[in-house]
Amino acid sequence: MEAKLDDHTCHPDFDPAFRDRLRTLLAWRRDVRRFRREPLPQVTIERLIGIACLSPSVGLSEPWRFVIVEDQARRAAIRACFEHCNQDALRLQESDRASLYARLKLSGLDDAPCQIAVFADRATAQGHGLGRLTMPATLDYSVAIAIHTLWLAARAEGIGVGWVSILDPARVAEILDVPKDWTFIGHLCIGYPEEDADLPALQRQGWEQRQPSAGVVIYR
Amino acid sequence: MEAKLDDHTCHPDFDPAFRDRLRTLLAWRRDVRRFRREPLPQVTIERLIGIACLSPSVGLSEPWRFVIVEDQARRAAIRACFEHCNQDALRLQESDRASLYARLKLSGLDDAPCQIAVFADRATAQGHGLGRLTMPATLDYSVAIAIHTLWLAARAEGIGVGWVSILDPARVAEILDVPKDWTFIGHLCIGYPEEDADLPALQRQGWEQRQPSAGVVIYR
Repeated sequence: MEAKLDDHTCHPDFDPAFRDRLRTLLAWRRDVRRFRREPLPQVTIERLIGIACLSPSVGLSEPWRFVIVEDQARRAAIRACFEHCNQDALRLQESDRASLYARLKLSGLDDAPCQIAVFADRATAQGHGLGRLTMPATLDYSVAIAIHTLWLAARAEGIGVGWVSILDPARVAEILDVPKDWTFIGHLCIGYPEEDADLPALQRQGWEQRQPSAGVVIYR
Repeated sequence: MEAKLDDHTCHPDFDPAFRDRLRTLLAWRRDVRRFRREPLPQVTIERLIGIACLSPSVGLSEPWRFVIVEDQARRAAIRACFEHCNQDALRLQESDRASLYARLKLSGLDDAPCQIAVFADRATAQGHGLGRLTMPATLDYSVAIAIHTLWLAARAEGIGVGWVSILDPARVAEILDVPKDWTFIGHLCIGYPEEDADLPALQRQGWEQRQPSAGVVIYR
């Protein structure tokens, strides 16, 4: 049964073929670091953000804030921030892993045509505080989930997303001149990927591998 | 083109019909608080957790830990913790909203046949620390995203999920006797929903409404 967004009486069912495709989408979503340079239309970016806004949020607070970074000087400053943080991280690696770390490609900041820094507005009045009194970080979780929604919608269009976290949050907020109550959650590189894969890049490069899901379940 | 998980050379494309269904799934995913009591098969829960483990995680750390809560005494203790925290939240509501707050149904703890408390293992060695040096909370974000993946996979099977955050994280960890390095992210109620909807319950109940996505985008 097909459902339209404006038809509140039509309840969608999802068939096994859809569920199979959804699983394929989840399996082939990747943290992309190698992008082709062709630009993304602005309408595409806005559509993906619109879909991201269908995400759940604590108390319907919708705390996600998307900062589309276009200015070349700001992009260069974020690139420099990444380099600085990544050098620190390299120095802290155990000696037997440092050379492997140095070979990893950890961001697509040079090539991705679109960059979006995503923040959580910790001061938003929307939602009237519901659900976040004991767990204020649920605002941040809501934003992380919105990023994930955008990521899946992008991949379904053949567009890749890479999440850069090797950054100093305070410095990113300063570079982008955002309100002081905004907490930095992640910096996204978005564009058409150079390749598709169903294994994480870090696994293919020998850094780490996935573990069986049975090992992360306990009963109480 | 169909892709199998074990075929690394077959790159999936997703057609407009799939993207349309994915958007419908995102629009009809709900934070469910009213459940039918019929049980969920254990194999279903394990399948949903397996799908959740396809989620992205910082440095491939896979920090998600799923605690399936079956013991009736522990369930009652979590129910009591929710009641306690919810009374505190009610007292802090502005007077003109307190009566509306008191009428909201904010959890399905009484009826949901399956309850899973989800934690982030902040001490995991997996991933060798990659990507989280400057932003350790990315471990928590990874777990929030895994919850979202489980949520979408469940909804695609007609199963509802409700995320309870009106809880004291330290008390939940104590009730469930989990390792001290595990950070509580959310408590999930899972089961067949009493109804479907494409509008958030908080919007239908007059608590808050969604805002246009254009209002959460800025350019820099």
